Amino acid sequence: MISRKGFEEAQKRAIKYLEKAGIVVTEEEKKRIEVVDAGLGDLKNTGVELLVYVNTERCCAKELVLFPRQTCPEHRHPPQLDNPGKEETFRCRYGEVYLYVPGDKVQKPKAKVPKGSEPYYTVWHEIILKPGDQYILTPDTFHWFQAGDEGAIVSEFSTKSVDETDIFSDPRIKRATVIG
Amino acid sequence: MISRKGFEEAQKRAIKYLEKAGIVVTEEEKKRIEVVDAGLGDLKNTGVELLVYVNTERCCAKELVLFPRQTCPEHRHPPQLDNPGKEETFRCRYGEVYLYVPGDKVQKPKAKVPKGSEPYYTVWHEIILKPGDQYILTPDTFHWFQAGDEGAIVSEFSTKSVDETDIFSDPRIKRATVIG
Repeated sequence: MISRKGFEEAQKRAIKYLEKAGIVVTEEEKKRIEVVDAGLGDLKNTGVELLVYVNTERCCAKELVLFPRQTCPEHRHPPQLDNPGKEETFRCRYGEVYLYVPGDKVQKPKAKVPKGSEPYYTVWHEIILKPGDQYILTPDTFHWFQAGDEGAIVSEFSTKSVDETDIFSDPRIKRATVIG
Repeated sequence: MISRKGFEEAQKRAIKYLEKAGIVVTEEEKKRIEVVDAGLGDLKNTGVELLVYVNTERCCAKELVLFPRQTCPEHRHPPQLDNPGKEETFRCRYGEVYLYVPGDKVQKPKAKVPKGSEPYYTVWHEIILKPGDQYILTPDTFHWFQAGDEGAIVSEFSTKSVDETDIFSDPRIKRATVIG
């Protein structure tokens, strides 16, 4: 749950980061920036702000805004009836992003897991994305990511986004934001 | 056909426009910017420069660079064996773009058709895209577009890109660039 005030403040802050990154968005788009606290009520540490440009049956593009050290928690996009699951490309536009996927565990990770959530972060192969860097994630692969100290903007190019079917490692997480 | 020198100059110029738009690209990406003269040998008026970020079996994202008044000529993306044809979203990032699709003909179009190519521009419903504006194009729909006097950068989010199957209204056009 997030308060109306907290939601609006996060929207405004996200707009500032988009401006820092030189990404122009319309007034209508500013109003529909999503603030995702993943139901943990700790947006500072766990969550993401996002602006969906397009999401059709076939493809999707959005900007993800991460405040400094904010973490998009570990999840995967499982196969659906008619497809193998969402395929995503993450392209860093601003700041630095630490992305984790299955594979060799990094010895000294750049990211710090939000306190109390340690059991729910299980993949530790580290990919560091700076502006202009990108990574193509195969469907149904666990992943999570955290912004560096400057925050980050990440463009996501993908197949259709069906967030409600995402599977999170943390059973406490609820994908839909509740404002109250 | 385009000369090696013309090709390299166009790449450098495209990089400058990406910089103007605040879009960060890597050194590796700079070297693989495509210069498309559509075989007409008149890049100043007809053509486009593009950087493909990702193009998988399922989705594609690229930046299109248009020099001032440069025109991407009229074409459509026909159905393929296994899909209804490429679906595209154009999002203007910098400059101004005049996009034309089937529909009510605009009385005073903002774009000027490259001289000698008038018969090959047949759709005249005008959409003006400024930074932050976007348009979703349905598959198999004729379209063409021209940058305004400042040039333009357009992000394209789409299903798989298979340029070699594009159908151009102008039978003189060849999609593959020949450098020589």
